[in-house]
Amino acid sequence: MSEQSIKPILDQNACDFSATGNDSVDALVQQRLQTMGPTSVLFYREPLVMERGEGAWLYDSSGRRYLDAYNNVAVLGHSHPAVQQAVNEQLGQINTHSRYLHQAGHDYAEQLLATLPAAAPLTDPRLLFTCTGSEANDLAIRLAWLATGRKGILVSEAAYHGNTFLVNQVSPSSCRQLPDWVATFSLDALRDESISAARAEDIIRAEIRTALTRLEQHGHQCAALLADSIFSSDGVFALPHGFLAAAVDEVRAAGGLFIADEVQPGFARTGEAFWGFNRHSTAEQPLIPDLVTFGKPMGNGYPVAGLVAADNLLQRFAAEEGYFNTFAGSHAAIAAAQAVLNTISAEQLQQNAAETGAYLKQGLQQLQQHCPRIRAVRGSGLFIGVDIATADGTQADPGYTSELINQLRRQGVLIGAAGKDGSTLKIRPPLCFGRGHADIFLTTLSGLLSGDDE
Amino acid sequence: MSEQSIKPILDQNACDFSATGNDSVDALVQQRLQTMGPTSVLFYREPLVMERGEGAWLYDSSGRRYLDAYNNVAVLGHSHPAVQQAVNEQLGQINTHSRYLHQAGHDYAEQLLATLPAAAPLTDPRLLFTCTGSEANDLAIRLAWLATGRKGILVSEAAYHGNTFLVNQVSPSSCRQLPDWVATFSLDALRDESISAARAEDIIRAEIRTALTRLEQHGHQCAALLADSIFSSDGVFALPHGFLAAAVDEVRAAGGLFIADEVQPGFARTGEAFWGFNRHSTAEQPLIPDLVTFGKPMGNGYPVAGLVAADNLLQRFAAEEGYFNTFAGSHAAIAAAQAVLNTISAEQLQQNAAETGAYLKQGLQQLQQHCPRIRAVRGSGLFIGVDIATADGTQADPGYTSELINQLRRQGVLIGAAGKDGSTLKIRPPLCFGRGHADIFLTTLSGLLSGDDE
Repeated sequence: MSEQSIKPILDQNACDFSATGNDSVDALVQQRLQTMGPTSVLFYREPLVMERGEGAWLYDSSGRRYLDAYNNVAVLGHSHPAVQQAVNEQLGQINTHSRYLHQAGHDYAEQLLATLPAAAPLTDPRLLFTCTGSEANDLAIRLAWLATGRKGILVSEAAYHGNTFLVNQVSPSSCRQLPDWVATFSLDALRDESISAARAEDIIRAEIRTALTRLEQHGHQCAALLADSIFSSDGVFALPHGFLAAAVDEVRAAGGLFIADEVQPGFARTGEAFWGFNRHSTAEQPLIPDLVTFGKPMGNGYPVAGLVAADNLLQRFAAEEGYFNTFAGSHAAIAAAQAVLNTISAEQLQQNAAETGAYLKQGLQQLQQHCPRIRAVRGSGLFIGVDIATADGTQADPGYTSELINQLRRQGVLIGAAGKDGSTLKIRPPLCFGRGHADIFLTTLSGLLSGDDE
Repeated sequence: MSEQSIKPILDQNACDFSATGNDSVDALVQQRLQTMGPTSVLFYREPLVMERGEGAWLYDSSGRRYLDAYNNVAVLGHSHPAVQQAVNEQLGQINTHSRYLHQAGHDYAEQLLATLPAAAPLTDPRLLFTCTGSEANDLAIRLAWLATGRKGILVSEAAYHGNTFLVNQVSPSSCRQLPDWVATFSLDALRDESISAARAEDIIRAEIRTALTRLEQHGHQCAALLADSIFSSDGVFALPHGFLAAAVDEVRAAGGLFIADEVQPGFARTGEAFWGFNRHSTAEQPLIPDLVTFGKPMGNGYPVAGLVAADNLLQRFAAEEGYFNTFAGSHAAIAAAQAVLNTISAEQLQQNAAETGAYLKQGLQQLQQHCPRIRAVRGSGLFIGVDIATADGTQADPGYTSELINQLRRQGVLIGAAGKDGSTLKIRPPLCFGRGHADIFLTTLSGLLSGDDE
């Protein structure tokens, strides 16, 4: 029998499509149901009509502003002029597919490859552009199957890796019934970041070995561990450093590859490193993935994504099947991606993610000390998860988490939920988020939590 | 045993990565191999460095211009100012995901849905945005499986439906070994468009019945016929009108659905209709798909794509799995798509596709009369296939087809190849292609073919 998926995470901040009391919003909701239909989930019980964005702020149709502590795609901040200008200039010149030579595309690839560690198994890396992170993960699994001749994939128990038929099957947070070639592991033991590194490694090694055994029981060998190195949808598991390397070590001992899904942690978000997996690397024990995938923030909202793999593996893939993606690596996609890379550097956004992230995390930890609703604060840089519990602090409280997210929205602060039961606040702002923004966030959250205590 | 795929079509206009004799081009080719690697196939033996585009023209790095008779994505023409301006204005305002209400997105969906026939099985249609046509087809197959509880898919023998793991398996032109739930049918009997409609229908019905039987022999029932209604990669099969409806009739009699893959023929290209499948529809016998997918030209190069399905099917899908796509239906994608829709109408591009397409096709048919190398001319509007034969006109000549494409490129005209053996010229220019452009194309091709005769 195939392994059960966890029940899909409730969309903790979804609109229920009932009347909001605001006629113009209700009319838009009805038009949406009539045009885009039932799969087009909206955020928040009272959905928002967003009309303008600037930096870390979004403005609704009434002109009210919302502090955006959620939307990671606009990594540089909303409507960043560097991306707007680069795309505009490019659209006025040429914007076609990648089957003509294109110096800027090659230069971008060269520059992005240079951010990766140049060591085995990525000594001879190549960048293959796709349009979305889902397409990149879809391809990464096919490459792992080709490289190993095996089928089994390990993922964390509330992982999300995308929306194609294939990657949905390795996404327990969206797939109802996982196939028998997918086995999951839990990160529950790492909820409290103060766990020692040695203990964390022991636990994760045991989890991986158990998952490998389950794969074997289903007649499959492990092709790869596919992991978002910050485990976003599981509820953000960033520490202790090294636990991911231990997991990879177990997988490699069993002959499997490591696919680093950097769609969420990549592009400087964690502050500690440009790529999330690098946070688990040391000089003595470097952690080098076999395949790296990325997407969301890469073009600050312009659709561009990709994958890095060793040249010899891509040679085999090209000989056996080949790959072409119409929109991938088009001129405008490269222009947007290059503007993002330049701006992350020019505006020192990695450093800001580290500094503001540390400040925000410390503020949340202080809040935790006198608020039993906060059971744990985890994260790295501007990617933070906060576990929300019942008022007595004894168990996860998805209902109150949803309430809190909607209260924050009413008070002008946008975040979302994560975690296998949806009880973790997911804080993931644009990287231009500064101390002033962090203060607003902390004050608003603190006010709501203390109001709840009364 | 599972059904064999045809051998993958040779990429008839691919670069072989040997030295071109142009140092700067060779340097770029080497940089490309070192950065983007072996899957990044280039067009033409001597690849091109394209730096600017305008209307139906592309300009290389030396300033030389090329008549673009190939690139269908830039449907309005290259660097169209309407798209540039719409995207630029939007990027300066807001560009985020579709989980906030967005009047313009709903309006666009409403407008696009209104271009479809409002009849069963699409009486209550909804538009689900994706980022790429591959993602749309991937989802369409999952929806067909859900709707029917069956697995089998019928596709034409050289079909291409995209690049994900799933849609690669229904793409005989790229997949080495088709799975046993895929069966193919041939269009060979329709190479000569003068075949009577009745005869064509008989042949295609027999082909479909044979394919259905092969599915059954493999233990599968038919979930859907997935067809690009102009059969681009098979070599362009547009006529006689009605043959596709006959195929769908057979499939529906067997309980299967019809997925119209409009990624290539959609958005007015065929001149006769906005959607390709509509060309096979009559008032007496309307042809209405169960699912419609689209992509490439939808944003004139900005990545945007989608799928139309009945509300009740999407309700089931939302309840069982749900779907979200980060970049799909974002503000800038909608802005680009709306500009495309407006411009197709404002510049009467469907009418131009019909008129210029008829003129070009007539010119090719005249050429055929005194050139045995041209065995057949097929097409509708600005989508034309020309079968190229040996000098005596007796058999398909993939080698000379490749030669011809490269000679055209040297003379400043861009086209590609299609067909199961790669011996069909694929002519598919931007829809701003006028009579003057058609004359250049015809003169250049005629010159090369008559030169070959001498």
